[in-house]
Parts: sequence; structure tokens; C-alpha cells
Amino acid sequence: MNSEFSGDTFVSHLECGLNGDRYAADQIHGLSQAGRPLLVRYDLESLAGSVSKRMIAERLPELWRYREFLPVRHAANIVRLGEVMTPLIPAARLPAGSGQIWIKDEGRLPTGSFKARGLCMAISMAKELGIRRIAMPTNGNAGAALAAYATRAGIEAFVFCPEDTPEINVREIAAQGAKVWRVNGLIHDCGRLVGQGKEAAGWFDLSTLKEPYRIEGKKTMGLELAEQMNWRLPDVIMYPTGGGTGLIGMWKAFQELQSIGWIDGKLPRMVAVQAAGCAPIVRAYEEGSPHAAVWQGAHTVAAGIRVPAAVGDFLILRAVRESQGFAVAVSDEAIMTARDQAAALEGVLLCPEGAATLAAYQQELASGRISPGESVVLFNCATGLKYPLPEVTRSLNCDEPIDYSQLVYDGD
Amino acid sequence: MNSEFSGDTFVSHLECGLNGDRYAADQIHGLSQAGRPLLVRYDLESLAGSVSKRMIAERLPELWRYREFLPVRHAANIVRLGEVMTPLIPAARLPAGSGQIWIKDEGRLPTGSFKARGLCMAISMAKELGIRRIAMPTNGNAGAALAAYATRAGIEAFVFCPEDTPEINVREIAAQGAKVWRVNGLIHDCGRLVGQGKEAAGWFDLSTLKEPYRIEGKKTMGLELAEQMNWRLPDVIMYPTGGGTGLIGMWKAFQELQSIGWIDGKLPRMVAVQAAGCAPIVRAYEEGSPHAAVWQGAHTVAAGIRVPAAVGDFLILRAVRESQGFAVAVSDEAIMTARDQAAALEGVLLCPEGAATLAAYQQELASGRISPGESVVLFNCATGLKYPLPEVTRSLNCDEPIDYSQLVYDGD
Repeated sequence: MNSEFSGDTFVSHLECGLNGDRYAADQIHGLSQAGRPLLVRYDLESLAGSVSKRMIAERLPELWRYREFLPVRHAANIVRLGEVMTPLIPAARLPAGSGQIWIKDEGRLPTGSFKARGLCMAISMAKELGIRRIAMPTNGNAGAALAAYATRAGIEAFVFCPEDTPEINVREIAAQGAKVWRVNGLIHDCGRLVGQGKEAAGWFDLSTLKEPYRIEGKKTMGLELAEQMNWRLPDVIMYPTGGGTGLIGMWKAFQELQSIGWIDGKLPRMVAVQAAGCAPIVRAYEEGSPHAAVWQGAHTVAAGIRVPAAVGDFLILRAVRESQGFAVAVSDEAIMTARDQAAALEGVLLCPEGAATLAAYQQELASGRISPGESVVLFNCATGLKYPLPEVTRSLNCDEPIDYSQLVYDGD
Repeated sequence: MNSEFSGDTFVSHLECGLNGDRYAADQIHGLSQAGRPLLVRYDLESLAGSVSKRMIAERLPELWRYREFLPVRHAANIVRLGEVMTPLIPAARLPAGSGQIWIKDEGRLPTGSFKARGLCMAISMAKELGIRRIAMPTNGNAGAALAAYATRAGIEAFVFCPEDTPEINVREIAAQGAKVWRVNGLIHDCGRLVGQGKEAAGWFDLSTLKEPYRIEGKKTMGLELAEQMNWRLPDVIMYPTGGGTGLIGMWKAFQELQSIGWIDGKLPRMVAVQAAGCAPIVRAYEEGSPHAAVWQGAHTVAAGIRVPAAVGDFLILRAVRESQGFAVAVSDEAIMTARDQAAALEGVLLCPEGAATLAAYQQELASGRISPGESVVLFNCATGLKYPLPEVTRSLNCDEPIDYSQLVYDGD
């Protein structure tokens, strides 16, 4: 290992995502001076010289197996809650093209969502950098992950949620030891409170992309997917896009893997999936704009992608365009239909945001933007168990005779 | 591989758990002629000659990596939903002795519970044996797993739940494509309906231990735990015990591993944890009885262990006694306190049944039946997200000035 590194990882510096300005590693950073996200850069040459696919294959099946690609210097700072490799479930019964379709079920991670990937990294780095108090706005699942990891790290956490955040999320945040408030606004209003309170409350702002490390955690989706697929990638990745950290992170992963020669050939087309009621990235994509304007009057059943303004908008749009992908919106009706369909046909309970990717896949297969032979990975970003399911009313009285043949053929 | 095997596994025969009578493999079986569970037996010598720890280590991190120890003959019959290896999470902040405590988080499995282990095996075997229609009584999570796997296998499923089964379970069973009814009774009343309807409805009875394969699926908890701990085992295993399939299965796993020399030394003490409001195994254990009488008036917040009569009672009691373990009951209050404590201190949301094992551990550490230096694995059998959490009432008005310093020190 190169002697300039203090620990056992390969971070060389941080870099403004917009203008490429350099920032020193191993210091506390928020946004760049240009007000944009910072990206972590690695000495990829040294990295490639110290680790092999084979070495990784022999490690525990958790995201820390990619630790040379991750920013935490000292193993003692890693905060763990069991970050398992999430399964890639083949979907064979859903209406689809002829290409292979997989659902990557991120609901298996701690606190039931992909947010664990970003937050285990952000909290581990907060611990490494000596941060003792943090705050974050959240539509729900990020707050739950934050609470669990902060509690585990002994870091005090303050969380602000839009008032219509799913009830389960608000409760799990509180149960897992964070302080949480409902706010009469949307995610960017909550973000404003976090920013405003910084000085008076003395907390560090852990908002999406306002600190550099959540994206590195989300990057593991790309590393893991590549390894699971034997270092080949699917033709298309459908990703539910709110703040977009995961899409940006995966694209960064693929570029890092490509630059060290671990993958070659065409990279996947990255498709940003949004809800029709909140589609700032789709609008910007269609207008050919490098940035996305704030979406007014945002509404959708998929709370996780109800993000009217994403600070990483230009990075999302850049990844979508560089990859020859696109951005697409689906209706709430299509989302709920897709959710019911995946459960009833595949036995997989998607969250609304995950269901949006299935709805978008079917829509774009019909439109021709995805061709029938393309292989596709749909990201289910959280367990479907956190979201209300249709009621069941059928009952039986076991004290009375039951006509079992009738039971079988009641035709529903 | 021995030429007498038609496929790529090592089942030699089935055996009555009570009297050892032999039954042929590769045929549909329910209970033995003695009305007791059938256990699957393997040609362990051939098995040990065909697979090594090293070979297993190189396979995918899912329970099918142990397939030589499992009954499915033909890979094509395996029904998969992503049966990941569940993490073993160290608990360092909970009040405990000096020994290492781990939580094995079974909530990461498909449908959010350990029931997936048993049901993926039972459904794969149902597929292998040509069964097209099945029925099962359930307190909730087993039904959810059954529904998902049956749907995936194209098998028609009928599920009967006590009327106070958690709402989420009834809904997920229906969403995942099974037919489900609420019944005005307890689990054994539902079991009676399944038995009664067998002929008229033409379904196969998939009740706990009434078919031979769920126990083989649950056995993977023991295989996986052994491998995760580098083929050494903890001093004590605390297991929430309703039907007891998992406890029986793990004990069977340890005996099989011991007989092929993959583990040696003392086996763990197996502790069956029940709720004070439904503790038939604890009563039988304390009375020194080999069988457990039906528990009258069963009630507990932990629906999964509200099983007044277990058909495998004698196998549970045998494992507990052979292992020098014990059976113990905890109050609902202790269960809920333990649940809140694990969430607030460790960032791990246990289900009530999982929380019962933590409550029991703390109770028996105090009583002296577990000594402070013993290493202990607590089984969290399902995701805590399926169960109601305490309400949160704090809110903020973002249109008014906020005193952030006050927010920080509001002292709750």
C-alpha cells in the first residue's frame, strides 16, 4: 500500500462535482464552495494493485467487502448493522420482454431500505471525523437508517420529516433513538430547518449529497451488482430517483471499475424513474437542460421519490445522458398496479418506489424505448412491508360446519 | 456420488421422530403412522465425501449453499426468493454479561421472517413431489412465506389465521396470491380446519411438522450459524419457541455436523423461550414430562409463539434436555421492554418473539441459569417492522421562527 495513506483505504482527495476543484481528504466537508456535492476520489492505481476480484470473493457477504473502494480509513470506525449483499431475484412471471429481468431487493438491508448503504458510510465517516451531533431532513427511510446507525455509533441525531411521511418511518426513527419532528412542509422545507439550525444547535448537516460519503455507500449497489453478475452488467438499470444518490453512486462505481479494468464493454443504460406528480429530473431531461428547476405542488404515493429539488440534479442528468439512458415518469395508478402485480405473480412485495421501476419498465417496453431483448435490473429500494396493503375481509366461523368444496371454488 | 441417488442430494429415508420407523424417500408423506413428525435422514458418509467446508465457502451466500444437507433432489425444483445468509449482529450496548452476545437477524429473509427457510424447502419439495394445492394454519409469518413461495411455484395455497393475527400478515398473505381467511379461534382451531378440509378440498396439509421438510429448511439456521462462527458454536442459543421447528432443526443440524466431524466439542445449550401467557413447553420441562399438554387460554403479544399445542413437543423437550439447556417463559411487559431497549440502544428493531429471547436472556442472567461469561446467540425471527411501534407526536411549524437551541435541549 502506498505509504502516503494513513490507513487501509485509498482516498486521495475530494472534488467538486461541478467544477472539479480539489478538497483535502480527512477533514469535515459539506458542499463545495460552488455549493455543489463533493465526490470522493481514490488512487485507483494503488487500489487495483492491492485487491483482486478473488480476494473480494473470499470476504464476508456484506458491503464492507469492497472496503478498498470505500472512504473509511480505520476498521475501528466502521459502524455495522449487518449490511448483507441484497439478492438479485429473477422475475419470470411478470409480463415482460424476452430479456432477463431481475429485481434487486434492497429491502433486506438494515432498517429495511437501501438508505442503510449511504447512512452506514456517512455515520462511519462522521465517527472517523469526530462529529458528535447530526441532523437530517427525510421522507422516511433515510431517517430510519440514520437513527439506527447514529445510535449504534453513539452520535446524537435530529430528524425532520414532512408531516405526511409514512407513520411507520416516523415511529421507527424515534424507537431507534433519534429525535424526530413532523414538519408542515415538504422535504426541502425540512432541509431548510436543518440548514438554519446548524449554528444554534451545533449539528452537522447530513442532508442527501450535502456531505460526501452517502454517495460512496450507495456506490456499493453498483459494485455488488457487478460482482453478482460475474463482472458483467445488465443492459438497463431502472432506478427510482428522488435525491438520486444511488444513481450517481452506481454510475461512479461503474466508472471506477472500468478505469481499473474490472469491467469492460458497454455500461448499462441508467434510467431515472420518477412519479408523474414530482418529476423535475424528467422535465429537465426532456428539455435538454443540465439542471432541474424546483417542481411545484409535488405529490405522489411514493414518498421516497417526492423530492422537488435535488442538489445533485446535474450529476443525475449527466449519468443518464452519458449512459444513453433516459428519465421517465409514471402515474401513481401505474405504481400501485405494478406493486400488486409483482406480489401476486412473483411473490415479491415491492415498495411504491420500487414498483415505480416496474411500471416504468412496462411503460417503456410498450413505447419502444426499452427493447424486448434487453436485460433489466429493477431496484426495489425498500421492503414493501412498510406500506399499507389492501384490506382482507374474508372470515370463517370454526364452530359451524364448513363446506370445503365451496371454499375452494369461491372464485375470487 | 453414490449411484443409488437419483439426484444430487443424499436423502436415504424418512424416520418417525418418536419410534424410528422407516419411511421411503421421494414419496408424499404427512405424519408417521404413530401420528408424529417424520425426520429426513441422509447418507452422511457419502455426503461428507462429496462436499467440504471450502466448497461451501465458495458458493452464493444463500441457504442453498448447504444443498447436500437438504432434501431437494433436482435443482430445477428449487423455489427461490433470495434466501440470504442472515447477519449475526454483535450487541455491545445492551446490559449483558461479559460474554459476547449476538442477534441473528432472520428478518432479512424473504417475506421478513425465518419462516421463509422452512417454507422455501416445503414448497420446493411439494413441487418436486407434484403437489398442486396446499393449506396451512398460521399465526401470520408462516402464511406470508407460504403465500410467496407457493405463488412463485405456481401452487394454489389456502391459509387460515386466528382472527387476531397481525393485520399486516393477513394482508401480505392475500397480496402475495394465497387465499386467506380469518377464523374465530386459535392456531390449533385453524389447524383443525385444514385437517377437516383435506378430502373435500383436495389440499395437502402443510401445518408445522405435519410434513417432513420445513424442519430441513429451518435446519439451515444451525448450518449457517456454524459456518458464520467458523465452525465453532456459541455457549447458549436462545430461541423463541412456538411450534419449535427451528429449535428441532438446529439441533438436528448440529448432530449431523458433529457426526461428519465438521464441529466438535460441546454443543450449545438450547433454550426454548416462550411467553408467560402460553408456555406449554416450559411447564412440561419443569414437570420433567416428555410431552406437553395443551395450554388453555393462551394469550401474548408475541403471536408467533402463541402455540398452545406443538406436535413436535417431545422433539423440542428432547433437544432442550440433551443439550443441557432449559425452557423459560417471559412476561409480555418484559418482551416489550426488551424490544424498546434493543431499538434504542443497539439500533436493532426486534419482533416481539425476538425480543422475548432478549428478555429471557436478561432474566436468566439475573437468575444465574446463564452465567455472565457465556456467549449467547439471540434469534430475532422476524423484522420488527411488522409490529406496531409507539406513537410520535412532536411537530414543528416551519412557517414560524424556531428556537433551535431549545430544540436541542428539550430533554426528552
